[in-house]
Amino acid sequence: MKTDICELLGIEIPLLAFSHCRDVVAAVTNAGGFGVLGASSHTADELEAELAWIDDQVHGRPYGADIVVADKFEGKGERLSGDQLLARIPEQHKTFVAGVLTEHGIEAAHDEVAGILGQALSDDKGEQLLDVCFRHPIKLIANALGVPPQYMIDRAKSEGVPIAALVGAKEHALKQVRAGVDVIIAQGTEAGGHCGEVSTMVLVPEVADALRAEGSSVPVLAAGGIVTGRQMAAAVALGAAGAWTGSVWLTTPEAETAPHTVQKMLAASSRDTVRSKGRTGKLSRQLKSAWTEAWAAEGAPSPLPMPMQSYISEPSLRRIDALAERGDEGAQALATYWVGQGVGLMNRQKSSRDVVLEMAEDYLDAVERLKTSLDG
Amino acid sequence: MKTDICELLGIEIPLLAFSHCRDVVAAVTNAGGFGVLGASSHTADELEAELAWIDDQVHGRPYGADIVVADKFEGKGERLSGDQLLARIPEQHKTFVAGVLTEHGIEAAHDEVAGILGQALSDDKGEQLLDVCFRHPIKLIANALGVPPQYMIDRAKSEGVPIAALVGAKEHALKQVRAGVDVIIAQGTEAGGHCGEVSTMVLVPEVADALRAEGSSVPVLAAGGIVTGRQMAAAVALGAAGAWTGSVWLTTPEAETAPHTVQKMLAASSRDTVRSKGRTGKLSRQLKSAWTEAWAAEGAPSPLPMPMQSYISEPSLRRIDALAERGDEGAQALATYWVGQGVGLMNRQKSSRDVVLEMAEDYLDAVERLKTSLDG
Repeated sequence: MKTDICELLGIEIPLLAFSHCRDVVAAVTNAGGFGVLGASSHTADELEAELAWIDDQVHGRPYGADIVVADKFEGKGERLSGDQLLARIPEQHKTFVAGVLTEHGIEAAHDEVAGILGQALSDDKGEQLLDVCFRHPIKLIANALGVPPQYMIDRAKSEGVPIAALVGAKEHALKQVRAGVDVIIAQGTEAGGHCGEVSTMVLVPEVADALRAEGSSVPVLAAGGIVTGRQMAAAVALGAAGAWTGSVWLTTPEAETAPHTVQKMLAASSRDTVRSKGRTGKLSRQLKSAWTEAWAAEGAPSPLPMPMQSYISEPSLRRIDALAERGDEGAQALATYWVGQGVGLMNRQKSSRDVVLEMAEDYLDAVERLKTSLDG
Repeated sequence: MKTDICELLGIEIPLLAFSHCRDVVAAVTNAGGFGVLGASSHTADELEAELAWIDDQVHGRPYGADIVVADKFEGKGERLSGDQLLARIPEQHKTFVAGVLTEHGIEAAHDEVAGILGQALSDDKGEQLLDVCFRHPIKLIANALGVPPQYMIDRAKSEGVPIAALVGAKEHALKQVRAGVDVIIAQGTEAGGHCGEVSTMVLVPEVADALRAEGSSVPVLAAGGIVTGRQMAAAVALGAAGAWTGSVWLTTPEAETAPHTVQKMLAASSRDTVRSKGRTGKLSRQLKSAWTEAWAAEGAPSPLPMPMQSYISEPSLRRIDALAERGDEGAQALATYWVGQGVGLMNRQKSSRDVVLEMAEDYLDAVERLKTSLDG
C-alpha cells in the first residue's frame, strides 16, 4: 500500500498503533505498520530501557513515541510535588471516593500519591523524555494533548523528525498546523481516552477540507473507533492518509491490560463505553462501570481539573484492578479502562501481528467491494 | 454504480434522501438517487396530494415514503385528543417555556395545541397514511422509530414493497430483522433527529457483522453524518449497501427549511449541534441554540415523554421561526432545527440535483483514492 503517511514514515501499511506496551509497538512495526510508544508513564531511565529494547527488536524498522504535554493545568509552572498537589484535593472528593470504594467492599485508598502523573504532565519531565526519545531512531514524535510546546516543535524540526498532534475539531487542526505540526491526527468522539464530540465520519473530511482551504498538504490520520481494515479503508475514502489506532491493541496478548479488563472488553458492545471526567478531569472515553456511574450520579462532586482528578482516581483504580484479578466482585464491578466504541468489534483475542495482517487483508476486501460497486 | 440497494430499489446511485419536502424527493429520484418522503406530518388528504404530485414529476422512477410509528408513548391506545394530551402537561413545564420565550422578548405561546403531532403518532393515523402510500407506486416504506407494528410489516409484505427501519444499536437491528424488516438503516450518533450514542464508523460494521452472524443478508444502509460522496464511499467500505441521508437536503432551495435556519446551518461547524430531549422528549440532534441551552440548564424541568414534549416545544418553535424571519433577535437566538454533525460540511447552498451529482462524483474520486493506495 502507498499513501502520504506510508511515504513519510517508510511503512507498508498506513496503520499507526499507539500503545503503552513496547511489545505491541515492536510487533506492529515488524508486521509492516508503525508502532508508537506512549512514553509519558515512564521515567527517563525506564523509557531509555524501553526504547533500547524496541531498537533491538525492530532492526531499523520505523517506530515513534508519544508524549503527553498538556497546554495548561493546575500547578503547572509551580514545580509542586505530588504531595503538595494532593494537599489541594478537597475533602469532599476524598470522602466521595472513599465512599464509592467502601460501598463495593474495598478499603479506601484516597491518601496514596500517584506522583508520577503530576511529573508526567510537567514541562521538565517532557524535556527529559524528549531527550531520551531523540537518542533513539524514532521516525515520529506525537503529542496527544493540545498544541505541542514550542521547544518540542523546535526540537523535532532540528532532529528532522516529523511531529504529530491529536485534534478533535477543525479549529484545533488549523492551530496545530500553523504552529508547525507535520501530521494531524483527527480523532473522533468514538475514540478511547480524551476525545471531543465530533464523530470520525464527519471530523476527518472536515479537517481535511479546512487544511486544504488553508493551502496545507499536511497528512491527516483518522482516529476514533478504527479497529478493522474496512474502517481503515473508510478513513482513506474520507481523505485520510491512514489510521491512528489505540483500543484494538488493548486485548492483544502483547498488551499489559489487566486480564479482567481484557475480558470485559472482549464481551463489550459499542454501547458499553462512556465519556466521563471521572478519571482525569477531562472528558475521556472508557468502559462503563460502577466507577463511571458513581461520578455521573446525582450528588457526585464535580471532577477536579487535570491532573488533580488523576490523583484521586489512579491509586483507586490500580487497587481495583489488583482486587478484580483476585476475583473480588466489588472491584470487578468498578474496574474500567480507556477504550473506544470500537470495542464492540473486538470480540476475540489475537496477536498484534495478526491484528495488523487481518486489518491489511480487510482493507483490500473493502477496496474490492468499492471497485465492484462501480463495475456493477 | 451497483450495490445490493441499487438492485433492490432499481436506482443508479446508492443514495437515499429522506425529506419532508416533495420537491427534494422528486429531484433526488430524478437525478438517479432515491427520494423518501417523510409522510407523518401530513393528513391523509395532504399526503395523497403530495404523492400524486411526486408521481407526476418522476415518471415512474422509484421513490419511497417514511412513516413515524412509535412503539409506545403517553396516551397511546387511549384515543386522546390533542386538548386532552395538552391538559396532561405539568404547569411547571408551561411556565418554564413561557419564561424562556419571555426572556427572549417573545410572547408566551404555551397554550397552543399542535394536535397534528399526537395524531401523527397514533396507530389510526399510521394505518390511514399507509393506505394512501400504497395507492401510489412506492418502492420502499420506512419506519423511523422502533420496530414497525405488525400490521405495517404485513401490509408491506402483501404489497410486495420492502420495509426499512432505522436502528442505533446492533441489538435493535437483530430485533428488526427477526420481525421481518427488509432493509436496515444503521444510524450513528452524528445523525440529525432521533439518534443513539454509537458512531456511524462503528455502528455500520457492528450491525453488518451481527446480521451476517445471524445468517441474514438484509442490506444495511449507513446513516449519520453523511453529506458527501466520500462519506458514501466510506459507508460502502464499512459494509453498507449505500447511504441514507437527511441533513444535506435541508439547505437546498427545494427544502422548506426556515430561511434563517438555513443560514445558521450553512455557517455552522460540526460542533454546533447537540443531542437534546428538549424538542420531542427523546434525545434528538439539532442545532445548538438558546432553546437547547435552556433545556440543558440547571433547574430546567425534565423533558416530558413523547409526544407530550412536542406539545410544548412545537408551537413555540414555529412562532420562533416566524419571528426569526422578521429579524427578531431573540427569536434568532432561540431558532433551531434537527440536523446532524455533517452540517459542518454543508457550507454553500446547492440544488438537490447538484447534491446528488456531486456526491456521485465525490464517490468516484474516493474509490480512485483507494485504488491508488494499492497501486502505490
